[in-house]
Amino acid sequence: MKASRFFISTLKEAPADAEIISHQLMVRAGMIRRIAGGIYNYMPIGLRSIRKVEAIIREEMNRTGAIELLMPAVQPAELWHESGRLEQYGPELLRVKDRYDRNFVVGPTHEEVVTDLARREIKSYRQLPINFYQVQTKFRDEIRPRFGVIRGREFIMKDAYSFDRDHAGLQLSYQKMYDAYMRIFTHLRLEFRVVAADNGSIGGTQSHEFHVIAATGEDVIAYCPSSDYAANIEAAEAVSLIESRAAPSEPLTKKSTPGKVKCEEVADYLGITLERIIKSIVLAVDNEGADPTIWLLLLQGNHELNKTKTKKIPGLADYRFATEKEIFNWFGVPPGYLGPLNTRKPVKVVADRTVANMSDFVIGSNEMNCHITGVNWGRDLPLPKVADLRNVRKGDPSPDGYGELNLCRGIEVGHVFQLGTKYSKSMGAIFLDENGKPTPMTMGSYGIGITRILSAAIEQNFDERGIIWPEAIAPFHLVLCPIDYKRNDAVRKQANQLYNELLDSGIEVILDNRGERPGVMFVDWELIGIPHRLVIGERSLRDKKIEYQGRRDAEPTLLPLKQAAPWVVERVCSALVH
Amino acid sequence: MKASRFFISTLKEAPADAEIISHQLMVRAGMIRRIAGGIYNYMPIGLRSIRKVEAIIREEMNRTGAIELLMPAVQPAELWHESGRLEQYGPELLRVKDRYDRNFVVGPTHEEVVTDLARREIKSYRQLPINFYQVQTKFRDEIRPRFGVIRGREFIMKDAYSFDRDHAGLQLSYQKMYDAYMRIFTHLRLEFRVVAADNGSIGGTQSHEFHVIAATGEDVIAYCPSSDYAANIEAAEAVSLIESRAAPSEPLTKKSTPGKVKCEEVADYLGITLERIIKSIVLAVDNEGADPTIWLLLLQGNHELNKTKTKKIPGLADYRFATEKEIFNWFGVPPGYLGPLNTRKPVKVVADRTVANMSDFVIGSNEMNCHITGVNWGRDLPLPKVADLRNVRKGDPSPDGYGELNLCRGIEVGHVFQLGTKYSKSMGAIFLDENGKPTPMTMGSYGIGITRILSAAIEQNFDERGIIWPEAIAPFHLVLCPIDYKRNDAVRKQANQLYNELLDSGIEVILDNRGERPGVMFVDWELIGIPHRLVIGERSLRDKKIEYQGRRDAEPTLLPLKQAAPWVVERVCSALVH
Repeated sequence: MKASRFFISTLKEAPADAEIISHQLMVRAGMIRRIAGGIYNYMPIGLRSIRKVEAIIREEMNRTGAIELLMPAVQPAELWHESGRLEQYGPELLRVKDRYDRNFVVGPTHEEVVTDLARREIKSYRQLPINFYQVQTKFRDEIRPRFGVIRGREFIMKDAYSFDRDHAGLQLSYQKMYDAYMRIFTHLRLEFRVVAADNGSIGGTQSHEFHVIAATGEDVIAYCPSSDYAANIEAAEAVSLIESRAAPSEPLTKKSTPGKVKCEEVADYLGITLERIIKSIVLAVDNEGADPTIWLLLLQGNHELNKTKTKKIPGLADYRFATEKEIFNWFGVPPGYLGPLNTRKPVKVVADRTVANMSDFVIGSNEMNCHITGVNWGRDLPLPKVADLRNVRKGDPSPDGYGELNLCRGIEVGHVFQLGTKYSKSMGAIFLDENGKPTPMTMGSYGIGITRILSAAIEQNFDERGIIWPEAIAPFHLVLCPIDYKRNDAVRKQANQLYNELLDSGIEVILDNRGERPGVMFVDWELIGIPHRLVIGERSLRDKKIEYQGRRDAEPTLLPLKQAAPWVVERVCSALVH
Repeated sequence: MKASRFFISTLKEAPADAEIISHQLMVRAGMIRRIAGGIYNYMPIGLRSIRKVEAIIREEMNRTGAIELLMPAVQPAELWHESGRLEQYGPELLRVKDRYDRNFVVGPTHEEVVTDLARREIKSYRQLPINFYQVQTKFRDEIRPRFGVIRGREFIMKDAYSFDRDHAGLQLSYQKMYDAYMRIFTHLRLEFRVVAADNGSIGGTQSHEFHVIAATGEDVIAYCPSSDYAANIEAAEAVSLIESRAAPSEPLTKKSTPGKVKCEEVADYLGITLERIIKSIVLAVDNEGADPTIWLLLLQGNHELNKTKTKKIPGLADYRFATEKEIFNWFGVPPGYLGPLNTRKPVKVVADRTVANMSDFVIGSNEMNCHITGVNWGRDLPLPKVADLRNVRKGDPSPDGYGELNLCRGIEVGHVFQLGTKYSKSMGAIFLDENGKPTPMTMGSYGIGITRILSAAIEQNFDERGIIWPEAIAPFHLVLCPIDYKRNDAVRKQANQLYNELLDSGIEVILDNRGERPGVMFVDWELIGIPHRLVIGERSLRDKKIEYQGRRDAEPTLLPLKQAAPWVVERVCSALVH
């Protein structure tokens, strides 16, 4: 490609809304242009990288035997009603009415459409297993689109859906996708981690996320450096920090704690550590036509409630935080002095695993300006219902027993789910098994955020001058920068000859024939992140040498002019081999 | 590809809503599956053909120097307000509100988005000309989606937008696209015709449509077999059928025509030809706060009004047909006896070109049950305002003077427009010219309906057994049908060997390893329309011969087994060369 026939539009400044480096660099390099919040034009240079990511994904999907099709963006809402998600999905689902006032959605995902397809097309066990995938543009009306294409509203995704006869079949299909994802992200040269994940609104039984490690990631990942364990903090299991409960050693004592409402304040005032204090969190679950059920969740003073785990406790799927008025009604005091002992009205108590093993602890007294110390399970309070309620913290024991957890941040670029029969049952995707028995298909769903991968790759590959593309997804492998191209005939001739030689070798070269000064050319291509550069000028012709510089190299290398093309082709190709 | 790793889903019956053969065959062959009116899943076998059409289009677009990018499907309505089309575009424009109640549209076309992009990115004449294109999914909320993907609501389109310094530049950009379209449709092996077109709502100054000739086409095309002339009937110029007006020879005579209100009835009753009668059509244009302006359009009795031409008459852009009440008020009689002579209130008269050259003609008298014969311009009526008001008919003189017009039907698959400065002026897409003068860019827009091309190709290539794909866009070039594949080891081995040999030659072969009976296989693949077929069975092995049949061949050809692969590869490749 010659730059004069391409569109290059670099910017010195990043837009004010670009908070993270990949967003800044994608805009500055001219890869994307914002048209509305979370909606972008993919500019020519950005589209080239997108197509490369797509091709790598297609290759691996095809290798697994998954079959590509293309489902529509605009979907009948009635399918979403059948699955139950029309009601569950919040305002992220873009709802539309057509000219006849019929309801549609702009698809954020395609479980409903593909299940509808399967129930029409698949009748017999002989047609299973099957895995359909597509590369398609989706829309999620994010509450706060940000970080460029990381949390965009319109984005390109590869989504695949497997259909199996039973759970054992699903395990195989799931593993195939898992393995393909490992190959894809490895091929993309991303530093990534597979983590156990919560299933969220898609539902089902098992799921893993593929996270690109990045300080700017929106997700927190807990992992164990001494083992394979890794999980999204939403899902990471928190074990008890106290192995077993010690016998009571202190008497139950009411202490005045005037105005001390936060755990930290109480600990300070009483001169004890935060680990001795129990934090009381009051939740409410509404009951139609009756009082809400009030729950009291107990955490160690320095722990945080995990909302995902909380929702999984039977009865708490639709919890909300109690109002101040409800708290006063059930406990007789405002927040700050609450505890499980002597509540005004009955509440359901759940203790975190660590809390359940505490002894001689401190709780609110349900009286103003007082806490109770020396509280013990069994002696002063009935043994509570116990659950994993908290977020893990750095240094916690890994739940697999092989060391301590560490935390890092990641950008989710892939997600594999075992959906089971959630959709096939609700939507009636039934096949006849070997014995002629109608059976719901067992499904999996598998997504990769294609546009997001570009951002994630940049978060891992940049320096103060710009992007540093891995060869596999660079818009071009090599830039050829001739100095004084427009005026120096010899340089122009030599540059075009070398350009043709490189093109014939099958590598993707862009010839910068814009006639810009070397400084301008270098700044542009370093910002854009082309991994290899050749510079040719008057001096190269005189000395028969040409200057090569890899994007990560500190210094250029002088190459004999004649050997430059084969040398650089070899270098590009060896970087592309995977 | 082996059929066992692909998805084949043929149907014996077409759905009830499939009115035309391409729709029936696309569904029966398993290329598309309806999900809602005008919204389809593109199934694996259909997607393969779509991708081939896309690749052919990309190749030719890139050859012209057009640059690919990708714009969003969901577009801010405010851009459409700027161009004025938010208000002009009817309910075909799918309007959406996001979670913050901001207005968006699901893009039916991208003039607004690309003009917004150009006004931000293009500042100088040095950046022009430039042509951006994309392959993208669009949505038009058709009032009556039908004919499968011919008039779908969600569809894939290639759209390109050129930006030039001036009209001379646009002419060059336009011609490049025009030539590329000629190459594309030729490469696709479509029988097509380029026709002059009306610009419709996109606006601008010149446009051509590319029509695939098909009896089921929704458009009527007028063309001259003796010259290059061709135009959509909406735009085809109708010349006067009477060279010059003869002198009056009859006296003005009122004749009783009791109950004769149609031109045919009057002609019959008076014993004259329909060509002697003038049809009166009454239009109204509303005036705010005042009476409407009433227009009387005059056509020869056997001619049809052309609504597109009518709208172009100054003052008639927003015309409607007059109500019966208005007709009575202005003419004093109900429709059937109307004419330009002695109207009750003044009306604006426009005569078609042919009408203007008539003499001794018949008109309504504006009295019940009476017509007037022997009417002449100049003598009985003032010379009228003259315009081209009618649809051309078969046998009309071609407007280029080279013979007679013929009519045929076509499916519009491509459209090129000279937009001029319509969008750049309304949206402020301004560049600085060589003299530093702010100048609006001169634009063109160029579309190809990608999904529609499949239908159009089928309309031209089918027989009673199914589709007959042109090699260039066939889902596979060749199907290899082994007989008794699952039980006959020798056949299976030979089939796989031949399959690998064919794959290595680079042609796209599908091996039907489903183990179906020959009849089932043949019916499926003839329906799907794979252009070449090889059948291998026990007998082939015994005789060392293999049966080849081209999809259009009446009889199979026996080939020596050893030469089968090179022979068929040669045949496929020669069909692919363009």
